[in-house]
Amino acid sequence: MKCVFTFEPLEQLKIDLVASFPAVQFCFYENVTLAEQEMKSAEVIVTYGEDLVDEHIYQAEKLKWIMVTSAGLERMPLKAIKEKNILVTNARGIHKIPMAEFTLGIILSHAKGFQRLWENQKEAVWDKQTPLTEIHEQSLLIVGAGAIGQEIARLAKPFGMKIIGVNSRGNAIDHFDEMYTLETIHSILGSVDYIVSILPSTEETIHFYQPSDFESMKQSAVFINIGRGDVVQEEVLMTALNNQEISHAYLDVFEVEPLPKSHPFWKMSNVTVTPHISSTTMNYLPRALEIFRKNLHTYMNNDHEFINVIDPERGY
Amino acid sequence: MKCVFTFEPLEQLKIDLVASFPAVQFCFYENVTLAEQEMKSAEVIVTYGEDLVDEHIYQAEKLKWIMVTSAGLERMPLKAIKEKNILVTNARGIHKIPMAEFTLGIILSHAKGFQRLWENQKEAVWDKQTPLTEIHEQSLLIVGAGAIGQEIARLAKPFGMKIIGVNSRGNAIDHFDEMYTLETIHSILGSVDYIVSILPSTEETIHFYQPSDFESMKQSAVFINIGRGDVVQEEVLMTALNNQEISHAYLDVFEVEPLPKSHPFWKMSNVTVTPHISSTTMNYLPRALEIFRKNLHTYMNNDHEFINVIDPERGY
Repeated sequence: MKCVFTFEPLEQLKIDLVASFPAVQFCFYENVTLAEQEMKSAEVIVTYGEDLVDEHIYQAEKLKWIMVTSAGLERMPLKAIKEKNILVTNARGIHKIPMAEFTLGIILSHAKGFQRLWENQKEAVWDKQTPLTEIHEQSLLIVGAGAIGQEIARLAKPFGMKIIGVNSRGNAIDHFDEMYTLETIHSILGSVDYIVSILPSTEETIHFYQPSDFESMKQSAVFINIGRGDVVQEEVLMTALNNQEISHAYLDVFEVEPLPKSHPFWKMSNVTVTPHISSTTMNYLPRALEIFRKNLHTYMNNDHEFINVIDPERGY
Repeated sequence: MKCVFTFEPLEQLKIDLVASFPAVQFCFYENVTLAEQEMKSAEVIVTYGEDLVDEHIYQAEKLKWIMVTSAGLERMPLKAIKEKNILVTNARGIHKIPMAEFTLGIILSHAKGFQRLWENQKEAVWDKQTPLTEIHEQSLLIVGAGAIGQEIARLAKPFGMKIIGVNSRGNAIDHFDEMYTLETIHSILGSVDYIVSILPSTEETIHFYQPSDFESMKQSAVFINIGRGDVVQEEVLMTALNNQEISHAYLDVFEVEPLPKSHPFWKMSNVTVTPHISSTTMNYLPRALEIFRKNLHTYMNNDHEFINVIDPERGY
């Protein structure tokens, strides 16, 4: 049985896989173009999920299963996959630890004014007058109270934050003090200190945040987007920031990525740009391959209890 | 009864005090020099704790109580105070929230490489290759497991960190996985990822950390000092950093403060300097004055149950 990777894991991860599955012929390639030579005979393809196109699916005559080592399936050729009835699994669930740590790090850095303190160091300026705040008793609105949002809530709660969540049903969840839905969220936006958006990109969420939402926010409010860039039109966000309707935006995701060099966000003093990196961690691939290994055991045993199966119709 | 402040709280705090204690004549001054005119008749002095000298104590004929709105008593004229048998109380206990938040912020900023990411923004560089780490399953050694250390442990534990503490008896404490004493700590220094020093400055702790301690640490170790600067000789720390025996030092306290402009720490890429600011928060004075108010009620009622009474002999 042939398993083709369209990327190269670290040496030790490859050695472990090969040793664990002697019946599998692993072929590791640096990219999808190099991998194409083996597509025809591949029964399993392992990909980060941004390189496969329809043609690969049609060429891969023996293909039965695609393991996507990320969570977003937006760039996968799902129509062809559905047509050929190929199993797709992903790495859903491994993002919550790094993304929640990243979010708490951003919130604390903002409260403690680290960017200003670090600029002061460059000039050897000892300035004790910098106004530091606390997150204790501040409110945190988590828009998207799924696995990642719940992990953020779990970590933020012990700091004494008031945690407000948004999910589709508005039902109560552990670590959250109040819940809203996407329909009722607008009423709460004006009273929170930190807003973290983890919304995915769907028909319902595209350009979700309206100019009136930012107008209603506290002037001291902080908007953090680690979900998808297109939930807010960049023009809308830019206007809100230029009018100082909110205090700062921490943006890890954008309508176009990489964010173009000429984009105003890079230069705005009340915007912090990070390169869609919140889920990045040295532990990422080991964890994703742990899911793959479990599924590969299932596959080799002809069992059917796969973890993280994707419905190609819905895309998640 | 006259109560003299050697600093000016915000207007609202002054109004609240005056309204709450009609029998007290409050005199607020911007600094101790201006306050001197009222010292002679002051029964109570409220100070940040770095301005009073022996002479003030001898001049203040009616003085019965000094409220120090900080925790460190090193600069107080304790000998004269003891001689005249004056009650001293401080603001012990209000530092734990801001200092624990500050520490978690530093740890997360380090793990997520925020300094590097923010430098990248200045050059409009979208670099996803930055190696981000996690604090999940990393170990944290808290040297000084008092109120502040325990608060850091409480907040760090939910992140999945292994928490190791150091206190005088080495006894078990909530949120800590292991405990050591100042005598046994040296054996554990080589196996931890983050070291937070909250040691006060005492005869026992001065120049506590030895060159061999840093030599034994992991090359990836991070040393954070939010206690007192003189627990490590700066030469020793500098050598360790120059030899890359550890990865980074976050220093909020120094042997001489403010840190002199010419000090090499300012320019070292593996040192982050902050201006003894970890306990700073907009909530600081309101909380300190909350303690003062409770004690002032006690004082006015001729009760004796004061909060945070200092023994001038021991200095804490």
